[in-house]
Amino acid sequence: MTDSSPAGLTASEAAGRIRDGLLTSEELVQACLARIQATEPTVQAWTYLDEAHALQQARAADEARRSQQGVGPLNGVPVGIKDIIDTADMPTQNGTVLHEGRTPSTDAAVVSMLRAAGAVILGKTVTTECAYYSPGKTRNPWNPEHTPGGSSSGSAAAVAAQMVPLALGSQTNGSVIRPAAFCGVFGLKPTHGLIPRTGILKLSRALDHVGFFSRSLDDLALLGETLVGYDAADPDTRPRGRIRFAEVLNEAPPIPPMLAFIKTPHWERATDECKEAFAELVDALGDRVEEVDLSPSATDAWEWQKLVMEADMSANLEREWQHGRDKLSAQLRGLMERGREVRVVDYERALRGAAKVVESLDELFTERYDAILTPAAPGGAPKGLSATGDPSFCTLWTLCGMPAVSLPLLRTEDGLPMGVQLVGRRNYDARLLRTARWLSERAEAA
Amino acid sequence: MTDSSPAGLTASEAAGRIRDGLLTSEELVQACLARIQATEPTVQAWTYLDEAHALQQARAADEARRSQQGVGPLNGVPVGIKDIIDTADMPTQNGTVLHEGRTPSTDAAVVSMLRAAGAVILGKTVTTECAYYSPGKTRNPWNPEHTPGGSSSGSAAAVAAQMVPLALGSQTNGSVIRPAAFCGVFGLKPTHGLIPRTGILKLSRALDHVGFFSRSLDDLALLGETLVGYDAADPDTRPRGRIRFAEVLNEAPPIPPMLAFIKTPHWERATDECKEAFAELVDALGDRVEEVDLSPSATDAWEWQKLVMEADMSANLEREWQHGRDKLSAQLRGLMERGREVRVVDYERALRGAAKVVESLDELFTERYDAILTPAAPGGAPKGLSATGDPSFCTLWTLCGMPAVSLPLLRTEDGLPMGVQLVGRRNYDARLLRTARWLSERAEAA
Repeated sequence: MTDSSPAGLTASEAAGRIRDGLLTSEELVQACLARIQATEPTVQAWTYLDEAHALQQARAADEARRSQQGVGPLNGVPVGIKDIIDTADMPTQNGTVLHEGRTPSTDAAVVSMLRAAGAVILGKTVTTECAYYSPGKTRNPWNPEHTPGGSSSGSAAAVAAQMVPLALGSQTNGSVIRPAAFCGVFGLKPTHGLIPRTGILKLSRALDHVGFFSRSLDDLALLGETLVGYDAADPDTRPRGRIRFAEVLNEAPPIPPMLAFIKTPHWERATDECKEAFAELVDALGDRVEEVDLSPSATDAWEWQKLVMEADMSANLEREWQHGRDKLSAQLRGLMERGREVRVVDYERALRGAAKVVESLDELFTERYDAILTPAAPGGAPKGLSATGDPSFCTLWTLCGMPAVSLPLLRTEDGLPMGVQLVGRRNYDARLLRTARWLSERAEAA
Repeated sequence: MTDSSPAGLTASEAAGRIRDGLLTSEELVQACLARIQATEPTVQAWTYLDEAHALQQARAADEARRSQQGVGPLNGVPVGIKDIIDTADMPTQNGTVLHEGRTPSTDAAVVSMLRAAGAVILGKTVTTECAYYSPGKTRNPWNPEHTPGGSSSGSAAAVAAQMVPLALGSQTNGSVIRPAAFCGVFGLKPTHGLIPRTGILKLSRALDHVGFFSRSLDDLALLGETLVGYDAADPDTRPRGRIRFAEVLNEAPPIPPMLAFIKTPHWERATDECKEAFAELVDALGDRVEEVDLSPSATDAWEWQKLVMEADMSANLEREWQHGRDKLSAQLRGLMERGREVRVVDYERALRGAAKVVESLDELFTERYDAILTPAAPGGAPKGLSATGDPSFCTLWTLCGMPAVSLPLLRTEDGLPMGVQLVGRRNYDARLLRTARWLSERAEAA
C-alpha cells in the first residue's frame, strides 16, 4: 500500500493536517478515490459512490476552513457508511433487492452527527442481506479468496484497503468485531444505548449496536466522541455527561491493567493457530492476565441471543416477509420461520437471563479485572465467499450490551489478520480503549 | 360525612393550613384515623395500617415545620399507597397470598418522591390480585353492596370515604379511571412514562401507568408536580422540563375548549342512564363539543391491549406461575394460559398498531380539539362484590399512553356516582386538567 498517499493517514492524522493547512480535504478525498479506483475491482467494498458528490463535500469543508468558520473535529475527513444506515443524499438499500432504489428523505442520527462534525460522507458500503448472514460482493483485502466477514463487510474492507480512514457499521451478533478482525483493522462496538440508532435498519432493539472501523485507537476515540449522544427517538439512549474518550485513551493507566482471559463455552470452535496465538499472548502478559471461567448462568446466553434476534428480526422485517419473502435468501427466510414462532414468555425469560449475566460479569470488573480478553473470531478469515464466518465469540458481549474492541495484533501462518477482542464494563468505553492501548503496546513489545 | 373534620379537607387545603400553622399534621392524621375507625368496618379499604407509625410521621412533619426546616409541598399530608407499590417500612403484598408477608427493603420511586415532598405514608390500600380482576375485600363507600371498581379499589374508596385526601394507584387497563368513577372521586392517569414505576409490581412495561385519586383537581395537579420525574431505572421515563400543573390548571383557557365526544366501538356496553346523561351533557355543552368517530385503525385496539397485557403479565409473573399457580385465581391462571402462547411477532404488531392509533388521535388534537370526552365506565358501580366492573372505556387510552382524568360529575338514579372521562394529548397533562376544570364548571352551571 502507498505509504506516501494521504489515503494511508489515520483520521486523526488527516484531520490534524487539514486543520493545520498542510492538506486539503479535496486532496485527501482525491487520494481515497484513487485508492478506490485501484483496489475496488478486487475488494468491492462499495454499493454506492458518487465521486463528484464526495469532492463537492470536500471542497465545502475546505471552504469552511478557509473562511474561518468554526469547523468540527472531523472537518474534511471522509467516512464510509454501511448501507443499512440512512443517508438523505444517497440510496440506502439494506442489502436486499426488496429495497432496491430506496432513497431515504432524512439522514440517520449518526450521519447527521458526522456531518455536524465536518465529515465527508464518502459513500455507502456493502452489507450482507439485511445485515444478516447472506453475503454481499465484498472480498477480504488481504486475500480476495477469503471472506471479509460480515455483516459490515464493506466498511471493514474499505478501511483495511485504505480506501477511507473511517467507516460505520452495526452489530446485532458479531457484525463489527468479526469483520474488523478478519480485515485486520480496529473495530469498536460501544455499550448498548450509547449511540443513537434512529434511521438505521432496525433488526432488534435489544441487540442492535452502532460500531465503527479505523486504523488506529485514536480514531476510535475520535468517532466515539462524535457519535455518543442522547436521542429522544432512540428509547435506549440516555442523557449522560460527555465521555472523554481521547483524554482517557491518552492517560497512562493508574496501575497496570489486569485482564480476565475467558475462553467461553465455545473454545472448541477456535482454530489451533488461534489457540496457540492466545496461549503465547497470555504467556507474554504474565501476571497481568488470569484465566477466568464464565459463570454457569452464561451458558445459555448463545441460545438466548439467537431467540431474541430471530424473534425481533421476524417482527421488524414483517413487511418484507408479507410482501416479498420469495426475494429473501433461504437463510433469512429460515430465520424468520423460526423467529415467528417465538413466544413472548420465552423472549422475556431470555432477556431476564441476559440481565443476570450482565450482573455476574459486572462483578469481575468491580472485583479485579479491567477487561476481558478473548478472541474476536475463531481464527483468521475463512476461505470462500459464500459465508461470512462464525460470530460465536461476539454473541455473549452483544447480548450483554458490553463495549468490545477488536485489535489487529495477531496473524495466521498465511499472513491473515487475527483479532484480539477486549470486552469492557458497560459504560466504561473510554477505559476499555485505554486498556486496549496498553495491551497493544505490551503485545508489540513482546 | 363530618364537614367539620379536617379529614374532609382536600390535600391542597390541608397542606396550606399546616403551612400556615392553622392545623398540625398530627391533628389531620388523627382525624383521618378517626374517620377510618368509623368507616373501615364497612368500606375495608386498607390492607396495612399502623396508627402509631402514621402519627410518628405526622409529628416529624410538624417538627420539621416548627424548626423551620425547609418543608415540601405535601408536608404533613397523609397519602394512601396501593399495595403493589413498595414501601420499605410496611409490607407490600400485591394482593396475592403468594406474596404474603413480603416487606420490600426499599421504597418505590414514587414513595420516595412523596416522602421528599413531606407526605405521611398513611398505609397500604387494597388491590385486586396482582392488580388484575380478582377482587379484594373493599366495598363502595356509596353503597357497600356495590363494587368500588378495581384494581386500585382501596385507594379510590379511601379517598371517597374521606379516610385520606390522596392515594396512589396504577392502571394497566382501567384500574385508576374506573374505580375513581365508581367511587365518585377525581382520578388522573398521566401520560405513559411521566411517572417512574421503579419498585411497583411490574405487569406490563408498555401498559403500566401510575395514577392517583383525590377530591379536587388542585390535588391532582399537586400530585402531578410531585410525581412526574426522570428515573434512570424506569426506561420509559425521559428527562423533560418541569410540568407546571398548578399554574396551567389555574389559568383560564385562552379560548373556550372544544371537546371531541367519542362513543368508541363499545358504546353498546354503556347503560341507558349513562347514555342519557352523556346526551344531556353534550347538549348542555352546545357548540363546544362535536361527536367524532374513531379512525378504523383503532377498532382493533382492544384486542391489541388484551394481547399485550396477557403476554406481558405472563412473562412478568412467571415466577408465580412456576412456583404457585395453584394459589392464583382461576381468572389470573386463565390469563396466563392465554398469555403464555402469545408470539413476539403478534405482540410487536399490536404495539406498532397502537403507535399508529396514537398518530391518528394526535391529529384530532392538532386540528381542532382540546380533549376527548367519553364515559369513564359503562355506568355507575355494578352491584355485587365478585367483580370490579368493565374497563372497556379505558382500554384504548391506556394502550395509547394518553393522559386521562375521571371527573365525578354525574349520578345514577340510585345516587351512585358516574364518571366523565376526559382524555388528552400525550404529554399535555396540565392542559388536560385545565380543560377538566372548565368542563366541571360548565357542567355545574348547566
